[in-house]
Amino acid sequence: MRAIQITEFGGPEVLNVAEVPEPVAGPGQLLIEVSRAGVNYADTHQAEDSYLSSPELPLVPGGEAVGRTSDGRRVVALLGSGGYAEKAVAAEAMAWDVPDGIDDVTALGMILQGATAWVLLRRSTHLEPGESVVVHAAAGGVGSLAVQLAKAWGAGRVIATASTKEKRDLALELGADAAVDTAEPDLKSALIEANRGRRVDVVLEMTGGTVTDQSLRALAPFGRLAFYGMASRQAPSPVQPAGLMAHSTTIAGMWLAQVFQLPGDVMGTALRELFGLAADGRLRVVAGGEYGLTEARRAHEDLRARRTTGKLVLDPSR
Amino acid sequence: MRAIQITEFGGPEVLNVAEVPEPVAGPGQLLIEVSRAGVNYADTHQAEDSYLSSPELPLVPGGEAVGRTSDGRRVVALLGSGGYAEKAVAAEAMAWDVPDGIDDVTALGMILQGATAWVLLRRSTHLEPGESVVVHAAAGGVGSLAVQLAKAWGAGRVIATASTKEKRDLALELGADAAVDTAEPDLKSALIEANRGRRVDVVLEMTGGTVTDQSLRALAPFGRLAFYGMASRQAPSPVQPAGLMAHSTTIAGMWLAQVFQLPGDVMGTALRELFGLAADGRLRVVAGGEYGLTEARRAHEDLRARRTTGKLVLDPSR
Repeated sequence: MRAIQITEFGGPEVLNVAEVPEPVAGPGQLLIEVSRAGVNYADTHQAEDSYLSSPELPLVPGGEAVGRTSDGRRVVALLGSGGYAEKAVAAEAMAWDVPDGIDDVTALGMILQGATAWVLLRRSTHLEPGESVVVHAAAGGVGSLAVQLAKAWGAGRVIATASTKEKRDLALELGADAAVDTAEPDLKSALIEANRGRRVDVVLEMTGGTVTDQSLRALAPFGRLAFYGMASRQAPSPVQPAGLMAHSTTIAGMWLAQVFQLPGDVMGTALRELFGLAADGRLRVVAGGEYGLTEARRAHEDLRARRTTGKLVLDPSR
Repeated sequence: MRAIQITEFGGPEVLNVAEVPEPVAGPGQLLIEVSRAGVNYADTHQAEDSYLSSPELPLVPGGEAVGRTSDGRRVVALLGSGGYAEKAVAAEAMAWDVPDGIDDVTALGMILQGATAWVLLRRSTHLEPGESVVVHAAAGGVGSLAVQLAKAWGAGRVIATASTKEKRDLALELGADAAVDTAEPDLKSALIEANRGRRVDVVLEMTGGTVTDQSLRALAPFGRLAFYGMASRQAPSPVQPAGLMAHSTTIAGMWLAQVFQLPGDVMGTALRELFGLAADGRLRVVAGGEYGLTEARRAHEDLRARRTTGKLVLDPSR
């Protein structure tokens, strides 16, 4: 079958189309004929071996796929790797049925980004009605859903940040009450100003560096910043616990993979709610572009250059 | 009237009994004839000017008092200072009526320590039924109440730490399922072992230094550490946000004073629930000793030497 195969770690240039053996489903696994594979920031880290867990080579990248199983179920699945291919193997426990009326892009947008937004707001920060929420990278996969979820769950003011006017306009169209340029030199003040002079209650942060530092300083008493990515590849400043105490602020790290170590079916619960909101038209996945397998490099280049908005998918048939 | 007056910052030796003018209640304030004043760790920081906010001299220390107002109400009040005296002035918004059947020590134990335990479990860490909880300094004012509250709210295993066998026995008597010596050289492993080999979900931490560091490392995925004091006067190591992300862990700073910046009557809600649990016999304040005003130095010495357990109060009439 055709797949993207990485034989050495690196940037987009290491993504090559290759003919590789079909994967075989073992016990407790499903073989999926991939209709569309999702493309995520995490994949670019995986390709350059800068992600939280280190993969082995050769590697077919890709952490999510939607398609049909051999017995005809339509499922969306989280994978350790292997999504950028015509066929992929998923653990049964990591595959969920996709309801009728939910298209491929929506299913792929929910499984990682939607679930991430759900966990960030429900578990990491415990959003309460009326609270202000800053969503960084608000036109991205997680951000665009987080803006809508926060509004659907009764947030007060939702403040989006993004790097271009187009992205900020998209965030406003999705329901954000204000939009701030991520490049504002005094981001802390810009966030507070966008919240009508008040410090903010919740921040969803995946940028790193000074964006994290400035956002922490913009938190109101009992405010929570969820840190779930470092797209700038710059570490934030270390945090002094005594400083958190002095301001009664919280920093919550979140890596979705670890949700499976929690008791109860957190992912299933999240996906059911997310698919329900999507079916009701209250939550939509922004389509960010579809690439053929041969265009995988360009997909990563676009993602790394922050040129994209919304959910990127690969079509393995071309 | 008689009061403890500090004219220079320092250790217990700066606490002197003095004759000072009676305070006068201004608009929105109450004059309280102090029946008992609470003695807290925070007072020792205030006396040596190492607390989060810096007081002015001369200073009558003491952040809490219970007693009668001139119109006969029995109230317990939070004060900026002034509690170690025969009379004290409180903001009306910081004074709450004490129900019948709640004694002075219980009222004083709830207003700061009980409310702190309540906020730590309800707001800072969002304790969920079945979760494991580590309570450091479990025989102290906050700790002894946090152990009982965690059990009353359906926590799974509650693990107490304390520095002496007597304190650990008290924590077990209050309902803790296991007790660990705070001085364990490998505290992280000791906590996990006390939790039957599993990492822990919630930690309430007020010690600082390596106790914080080790406790953070003992957290399970989606575990939360609430940091609300630094009794050892040693700062924990700075925390890397990327490390929190890698383990999906949260550190939540908490300083009770900031609860008043939240919308809604958080303190009133907390105190009503706490007094209710106490009236039902499900929550008891451990009496830690009563000192006369002339014994204030000894009270601070005992507290700083970590010789005390439970709630310390001053009787300003002697």
